[in-house]
Amino acid sequence: MSSSDIFIGETIGTAILILLGGGVCAAVTLKASKARNAGWLAITFGWGFAVLTAVYTSAPLSGAHLNPAVTLALAIKDKDFSNLPTYIGGQLLGAMIGATLVWVAYYGQFHAHLTDKEIVGGPGAQATTAKAVEAQEQGAGPVLGVFSTGPEIRNAVQNLATEIIGTIVLVLAVLTQGLNDKGNGLGPLGALITALVVVSIGLSLGGPTGYAINPARDLGPRIVHALLPLPNKGGSDWSYAWIPVVGPLIGAAIAAGIYNVAFA
Amino acid sequence: MSSSDIFIGETIGTAILILLGGGVCAAVTLKASKARNAGWLAITFGWGFAVLTAVYTSAPLSGAHLNPAVTLALAIKDKDFSNLPTYIGGQLLGAMIGATLVWVAYYGQFHAHLTDKEIVGGPGAQATTAKAVEAQEQGAGPVLGVFSTGPEIRNAVQNLATEIIGTIVLVLAVLTQGLNDKGNGLGPLGALITALVVVSIGLSLGGPTGYAINPARDLGPRIVHALLPLPNKGGSDWSYAWIPVVGPLIGAAIAAGIYNVAFA
Amino acid sequence: MSSSDIFIGETIGTAILILLGGGVCAAVTLKASKARNAGWLAITFGWGFAVLTAVYTSAPLSGAHLNPAVTLALAIKDKDFSNLPTYIGGQLLGAMIGATLVWVAYYGQFHAHLTDKEIVGGPGAQATTAKAVEAQEQGAGPVLGVFSTGPEIRNAVQNLATEIIGTIVLVLAVLTQGLNDKGNGLGPLGALITALVVVSIGLSLGGPTGYAINPARDLGPRIVHALLPLPNKGGSDWSYAWIPVVGPLIGAAIAAGIYNVAFA
Amino acid sequence: MSSSDIFIGETIGTAILILLGGGVCAAVTLKASKARNAGWLAITFGWGFAVLTAVYTSAPLSGAHLNPAVTLALAIKDKDFSNLPTYIGGQLLGAMIGATLVWVAYYGQFHAHLTDKEIVGGPGAQATTAKAVEAQEQGAGPVLGVFSTGPEIRNAVQNLATEIIGTIVLVLAVLTQGLNDKGNGLGPLGALITALVVVSIGLSLGGPTGYAINPARDLGPRIVHALLPLPNKGGSDWSYAWIPVVGPLIGAAIAAGIYNVAFA
Repeated sequence: MSSSDIFIGETIGTAILILLGGGVCAAVTLKASKARNAGWLAITFGWGFAVLTAVYTSAPLSGAHLNPAVTLALAIKDKDFSNLPTYIGGQLLGAMIGATLVWVAYYGQFHAHLTDKEIVGGPGAQATTAKAVEAQEQGAGPVLGVFSTGPEIRNAVQNLATEIIGTIVLVLAVLTQGLNDKGNGLGPLGALITALVVVSIGLSLGGPTGYAINPARDLGPRIVHALLPLPNKGGSDWSYAWIPVVGPLIGAAIAAGIYNVAFA
Repeated sequence: MSSSDIFIGETIGTAILILLGGGVCAAVTLKASKARNAGWLAITFGWGFAVLTAVYTSAPLSGAHLNPAVTLALAIKDKDFSNLPTYIGGQLLGAMIGATLVWVAYYGQFHAHLTDKEIVGGPGAQATTAKAVEAQEQGAGPVLGVFSTGPEIRNAVQNLATEIIGTIVLVLAVLTQGLNDKGNGLGPLGALITALVVVSIGLSLGGPTGYAINPARDLGPRIVHALLPLPNKGGSDWSYAWIPVVGPLIGAAIAAGIYNVAFA
Repeated sequence: MSSSDIFIGETIGTAILILLGGGVCAAVTLKASKARNAGWLAITFGWGFAVLTAVYTSAPLSGAHLNPAVTLALAIKDKDFSNLPTYIGGQLLGAMIGATLVWVAYYGQFHAHLTDKEIVGGPGAQATTAKAVEAQEQGAGPVLGVFSTGPEIRNAVQNLATEIIGTIVLVLAVLTQGLNDKGNGLGPLGALITALVVVSIGLSLGGPTGYAINPARDLGPRIVHALLPLPNKGGSDWSYAWIPVVGPLIGAAIAAGIYNVAFA
Repeated sequence: MSSSDIFIGETIGTAILILLGGGVCAAVTLKASKARNAGWLAITFGWGFAVLTAVYTSAPLSGAHLNPAVTLALAIKDKDFSNLPTYIGGQLLGAMIGATLVWVAYYGQFHAHLTDKEIVGGPGAQATTAKAVEAQEQGAGPVLGVFSTGPEIRNAVQNLATEIIGTIVLVLAVLTQGLNDKGNGLGPLGALITALVVVSIGLSLGGPTGYAINPARDLGPRIVHALLPLPNKGGSDWSYAWIPVVGPLIGAAIAAGIYNVAFA
């Protein structure tokens, strides 16, 4: 694969991933969406099939990492870090493009949601639940969840641990893919398995933090949230932003270590 | 493939697509259906598995485009527009047959729904929500959603953009299918991936407009809605009808362009 | 395939099909079940994955028809009716075994449900909704739906039409399977596609009658319902019983005709 | 396969299985989880995709039994019991590691749940439903369901029968996998089918007892529940613990017998 194929593939693939992943969060969250309140199954299947579509589409160009944690783990496994900046650059750019496209596709819904007095409150509005107060104090605005993850209970050690554990599961499945495919490469079936593994992590380990398990998935859209001209959008919760970046990278390193000891 | 195989395959395939896709809308919407209020997940999986069944059944005859946007994109990619009228003719005919079969299968449900005073209102009934008033002013009847799509917020620019974005995702996945299948053709696995991509688009990008992403899927059933002898059916919302035709065709052209630049 | 392999395979496969298919109806319906009120998606995925498990397990022995409509369509297509009695005999026996196993697995739940005064009513209890009155007049007991199908609106012509249409879709997918598999036989992927086609039919065409689309699936468990010593079980609604037998057989014949004209 | 590969593969695989399977129970049950009350479909797909992830990841090392009932059935089929202790040892160790990781990932959620007066009650709190009274008398604490299974209606004969029937279905599908794969081994598609069979068993036969169908899945986490320092955790319901161990082993033996008579 050429560097330009890698960069373009990762940009397109991660843009699709975040367009569809952020899209399902918008669909289930925002006012005047047909999917409003469709529930946690819709969120988890939505993210999983976002992975399927994104991996399937970009695999012929770049191998479809779409996640700096996956890129790091494969680099550790193969002891080759030369393409790492190209991969991660494309991933971050793609994530920002994808988050912007969510805003375009749900333009009217964002406006209707954020100008609804009952949702964002009037002047001097106060958050009315303990969790909303906590989130507001941390600078999490009313639609930040469409862009980035946030914890139900704010505890850096546990939040980090949950992201590490989720990423270990993801990366072990990605690394053993190379043992399962009998030399046929990722292929449609590999894309499908990876997608369902992400559904699994969402259903089972998404409860505490919303399962970033991918630094680009969280950081790129958070930057876009900070830049977009959304009314009453509130803060971007930067105090939490390091956890969904650092946690997945630690998880990737641990998973690569387990792989090298037990499977290689 | 002969022209007659193409025409027959697309007619049968699109008829199955709309029978099952319109069917799930009828199942979830209409009075006296076991699936009433089964929710957005039922709608999106229902449409996705409609694609699976229709593609799988018609692929041996026509290659299973079942969508003028797909036909246009493949024609642009291959620079061969000769079969385009045959494909699109079969698709439109099939869509109209499928919508008519939905009416047959749910005959009693349509009647029970449309003669229920609480649902359609008595003489001089007034729509009671802002959205219902808007829809009624645009001529959208109480069961039009079983046949065709309509926006939650009526805004031609955004509605068009959402349909364009959704179709780009669909068509990129269809075009890269040719790179993923290693010369084995669509096959069962390709049909499954395509189906799940459609579930993904529904979950993630269906919130604003109901994701037509297929001109035949929207126009064919809208014509049938206008023709069928349904009591109190209301208007067919023709003022919106151009968007789910033009949007997907623009999206297909953009996706073919992206493909030719980045993947070919 | 030997006759004994066919008979044993169809018996085991159809027993698994009805155990799991009737099981999900029991799980969602009966008192003191963890899955109570899990909804229509649970029912339709439950039946679909019942097909997957049953087809996958019995395919190596008998080819996994598990449905007299499928057996009839394949016999018409191949102009060979010699094994038809063996297939259908195994299917009916298997369906009765499966329905009996549902009763064993949910023994306490059946008893708790049928002895609950609020569910079955006290002495002289009257059905309180129009549909319940209609069902009671037709002899449909409170748990008959765990065993057999019944219509939401009783109309022989529409009910028959709905069963015919659903079966045409199923059988066309089964017949084109032979064109899609490139001589590799049904296999795991074929079993999966068939299962998801059944989910599709359930979601999209199950609303009016509960989609029998299989004479053995309906008749076998109805006989078991009539025989089992369940308290307050009510009638077996024999006046409806011919529709889910005749409808699927007509649908199978029509689908085989379409196949022979358009695909063969 | 070497003994150490078997032991390590089963330990890692079963740890992933129970991390994800127990995880979805925690996600749906515990206070302050984003997935709270996501319902029975979330539970059953969560466990199914837990099987997918665990089988896919561990298959290259150990063949991915991850269940003493599967190991026993394959040993009976192959008349080779030599690796049985290695498999079952790894499975039990893995199940205990997985259950401990659930506790780590949901640490704050467990604490919030178990210190909520409305959930666990104040001093001298009384269970307020018949089932809760029954469970409390049997020593089932408020979060035991995150770790182990328990019956809705306590009846040793029925509970055992339900576990036996569910395990027969699972094991028949696992044994016929060897006939379906045409010598290609389990592979990604085999892992997917197995996972969906487990979803099927959950949806259809999980209602009465919560479908252990795996002695290690139930016993390992129950031991961890007894050991973990959780506040107000209540008892581990040891009086029920033998049923999800003995039932699946009996089911496995019966399924192996059916296989040897009908399929071999």
